[in-house]
Amino acid sequence: MMDSVMGRAGGILTRRRFFEQLAAVGGVSLAMAGMDALGFGFASASELPPTLTGGGKGAKVIILGAGLAGLTAAYELGKSGYNVQVLEARSFAGGRAQTARKGFVDTDLMGNRQECDFDEGEYINIGPWRIPYHHQSTLHYVKKFGVQLELFNNDNDAAYVYFEKGKGPLAGKPVRKGQIAADARGYTAELMAKVASKGDLDAVLSPGDRETFIAYLVNEGRLKRSDLSYKGTDGRGFDVLPGAGIDPGPGKESAPYAFTDVLNSKAWQVLNSVAGWEQQRTMLEPVGGMDAIPRGFVKNIPDGVIKYNALVDRIQQNPKGVKVSYTDAAGKKAELEGDYIICTIPLSVLKNIRMDVSKPFLEAMNNVAYAPVNKIGLQMKTRFWEEKHWIYGGHIYNDIPGIGTISLPSTNWHGKKGTLLGYYAFGGEAAKISALPPAERAKFAVAQGQKIFPEYAENFETSFSKSWHLDPHSLGGWAEWSDDGRKTAYPVLCEPDGRIYLSGEHLSYLGGWQAGAIESAWQQIAKLHQRVQQA
Amino acid sequence: MMDSVMGRAGGILTRRRFFEQLAAVGGVSLAMAGMDALGFGFASASELPPTLTGGGKGAKVIILGAGLAGLTAAYELGKSGYNVQVLEARSFAGGRAQTARKGFVDTDLMGNRQECDFDEGEYINIGPWRIPYHHQSTLHYVKKFGVQLELFNNDNDAAYVYFEKGKGPLAGKPVRKGQIAADARGYTAELMAKVASKGDLDAVLSPGDRETFIAYLVNEGRLKRSDLSYKGTDGRGFDVLPGAGIDPGPGKESAPYAFTDVLNSKAWQVLNSVAGWEQQRTMLEPVGGMDAIPRGFVKNIPDGVIKYNALVDRIQQNPKGVKVSYTDAAGKKAELEGDYIICTIPLSVLKNIRMDVSKPFLEAMNNVAYAPVNKIGLQMKTRFWEEKHWIYGGHIYNDIPGIGTISLPSTNWHGKKGTLLGYYAFGGEAAKISALPPAERAKFAVAQGQKIFPEYAENFETSFSKSWHLDPHSLGGWAEWSDDGRKTAYPVLCEPDGRIYLSGEHLSYLGGWQAGAIESAWQQIAKLHQRVQQA
Repeated sequence: MMDSVMGRAGGILTRRRFFEQLAAVGGVSLAMAGMDALGFGFASASELPPTLTGGGKGAKVIILGAGLAGLTAAYELGKSGYNVQVLEARSFAGGRAQTARKGFVDTDLMGNRQECDFDEGEYINIGPWRIPYHHQSTLHYVKKFGVQLELFNNDNDAAYVYFEKGKGPLAGKPVRKGQIAADARGYTAELMAKVASKGDLDAVLSPGDRETFIAYLVNEGRLKRSDLSYKGTDGRGFDVLPGAGIDPGPGKESAPYAFTDVLNSKAWQVLNSVAGWEQQRTMLEPVGGMDAIPRGFVKNIPDGVIKYNALVDRIQQNPKGVKVSYTDAAGKKAELEGDYIICTIPLSVLKNIRMDVSKPFLEAMNNVAYAPVNKIGLQMKTRFWEEKHWIYGGHIYNDIPGIGTISLPSTNWHGKKGTLLGYYAFGGEAAKISALPPAERAKFAVAQGQKIFPEYAENFETSFSKSWHLDPHSLGGWAEWSDDGRKTAYPVLCEPDGRIYLSGEHLSYLGGWQAGAIESAWQQIAKLHQRVQQA
Repeated sequence: MMDSVMGRAGGILTRRRFFEQLAAVGGVSLAMAGMDALGFGFASASELPPTLTGGGKGAKVIILGAGLAGLTAAYELGKSGYNVQVLEARSFAGGRAQTARKGFVDTDLMGNRQECDFDEGEYINIGPWRIPYHHQSTLHYVKKFGVQLELFNNDNDAAYVYFEKGKGPLAGKPVRKGQIAADARGYTAELMAKVASKGDLDAVLSPGDRETFIAYLVNEGRLKRSDLSYKGTDGRGFDVLPGAGIDPGPGKESAPYAFTDVLNSKAWQVLNSVAGWEQQRTMLEPVGGMDAIPRGFVKNIPDGVIKYNALVDRIQQNPKGVKVSYTDAAGKKAELEGDYIICTIPLSVLKNIRMDVSKPFLEAMNNVAYAPVNKIGLQMKTRFWEEKHWIYGGHIYNDIPGIGTISLPSTNWHGKKGTLLGYYAFGGEAAKISALPPAERAKFAVAQGQKIFPEYAENFETSFSKSWHLDPHSLGGWAEWSDDGRKTAYPVLCEPDGRIYLSGEHLSYLGGWQAGAIESAWQQIAKLHQRVQQA
């Protein structure tokens, strides 16, 4: 069938054109189904920006916000002949894609002013910090702008898990993730294999499948073939490491934990058959900080297109055009007129700005919560997690309130110092910690981390913390849609209201990811372009 | 108890000195048990070279071979005041730690001469290519010599597995590893959870453990809580990717494969509860090629210490000293006299060199097989595995005879070109392919890879292949000890015969790893040093 589709078009359709043709007929989903049938591993509507053939026809587009959505719109529309102007509230581009390094300043709504005093070369990505391999929209610009990538270690079997709320001897004890994986899966495989070999699954498994199933369990669980027992495996580590000669020679494998201890520890919560889609191996990060991506955009957008320190006061439209009133860097009121607006301001902030849109649109905007999100970078004198604990990147999953995850840097291996993520927490616990002044936040983070690494406190040098719900231009980490909001408010906001198009991660199912902002921008500029072409 | 040990020494023992003290009393294993009790995550005898206090006392040590063992011995002994001289058969140092890049020349025993014609910046590590996080001995020198590291992606859920010898619809079809993991573990969790919830495990699980066990299975297998069924999970991927707006909006999750198809595919062979110790996350690699490590050594060993192109003909010893006869670069016979020999020549090669050692020693040397090992680097015009398949590094596990593993580079992400490992195969199948001339080997590798990636052949530009069993100075990839050989021959060879000390990966339980060579050298120079001190 695919052959005939190809045939009708003369057999020389490129992948891109084939895709566009299907999209024209049946929308993006149909197109992606077609891509899939062509045998590509993943079908995607989101690898490439829309082709804006026909040019901008002199249309003037005002873009509000120079985060990833605004930058994408400005870059793509500008390149295609549109007259674009961007208003950005901050003194720099990137929106939430911020990297704190020496000299970086942040003042929050509580009046906490922090100036980052990390050593040269140290930094923390206080916004987005990793790129899943399937966020091809983000990777499109990474490649286009020559941003250098390195692997982000999102899953490390040698990293500790620390669950203090569990029960039994493993509670409140740092344990390597690989040991929990080996034991939980090993004991499960043993139980399952014994059940299967007794014939207790014969109602659901054919005799052939039963034998293959047992072979799988033996392999996966590292069971003894003879009696299907789990007695540990080298993958969980050694009490005496293997090495040279006779001593240590083969070393001595560690013994498994008791199954009941593993279960009671609750540490198995870190195990997944396969990591969730958004967290799945492989992940990447820009070398030197995530803000390399917005810097790539800025370098490729003509000077003067982005006005910084421009605070939007009022957004007007009528059937003929749009007008934005703002306060400029000098505190002066100013206005900008144009044909269309692409507004990427987070809804949390936007709902406080007077805007000429319909009542249903306004109501929809109020239907979204934004997530309290905390991050803190802790600069450490030495990389003790590598040197003493042999943990090269990855996360310390734990159940300490207010900490969320502790994460170790995936860059500058063996460097003199290192900056780790001391907490990455959401929700109520995050809100609580954010009420502390920055020095107290650091104190909290260091005291908690000390439970896991004995070297924590003595190595701590300086910190930089961010609470996104206290950032006046973000008022939250990302939009958190309820199921109901997705059904009612979300579709309303995805469509333009008159001449105003909203865009950003909040108008995607890739919430909180740069890819959500970029793909939302692609979608909205495609709509706007179609309208301009038809006008 | 540990307190009292510490107390006896005055409470200020450093970790290092405590370790050395225990080792002096009870050997390395006792020392490591002590380290473990001190609360370090892993106990290790192998983090640091021995301290050679007291100096070399003018002893002259001839080191045969400038691979990792020889380089380690030369560097450490030289630094401690020994008079060292290294004879190396090749024109460069590093032994098997070779990186093929533009201009690299290799001639094998069949007379196949290859000069690598990769593009500038492209390379393949034809020997060791990855460093486990726990090979702290290797990492010690990496750090000491300032070798820059990057992550080596040893486990990629997005990478394909390809099993053509399985049965059913998944046989001979590239399938993402994460999909197999999700389905195999998901269905297993479903079966297990249903058995447990029926009470069929009550003989082995307490009621509390049963409930926790079911909660674990629901979490691990991504089961529906209501009926404990496995219906797929977002981690196995999407038929329509989530994205912006309404379409694609949330996207469409992929449906799981049938359990019987997963079992029959045999692709589950790639799953482990946790990866084996040697292959476990995290792994690292030097930026730009593994030969950065030997180059680090060479830079730190005085000029003239290593004589290249020196082929050892005869190794003599008597109670007073040692003598090595060799043929130099100009083809001239030459001799070197000294007090001791550290001989790192692989046993496969050494057994053909006349050497004054005892009969049991000679017999032991003949008791070891060496592994046929093939690798081939294929330079590809584009990085289609990243661009079209979204696979960023990792391995394509497969059951194609002679291929072993196909591996994708973990470096130069988004580069114009890329060099992948077209096969990494051992044993009989490797021997078979190595009989082909290099161009035919490449043809074979490309034809097989084409089964997995439709872009393979059209992107192939040039190749460089290595068969270690055909290398005159290695005659195999690594020593393969039988259980019997480990019991009888191995202990004999670990001890010096008169003034001759053997060293290399073959005298370790880290066979084929650089760490084995380094730690063997550490062990042997410590023994030699003790003797020199006592002389």
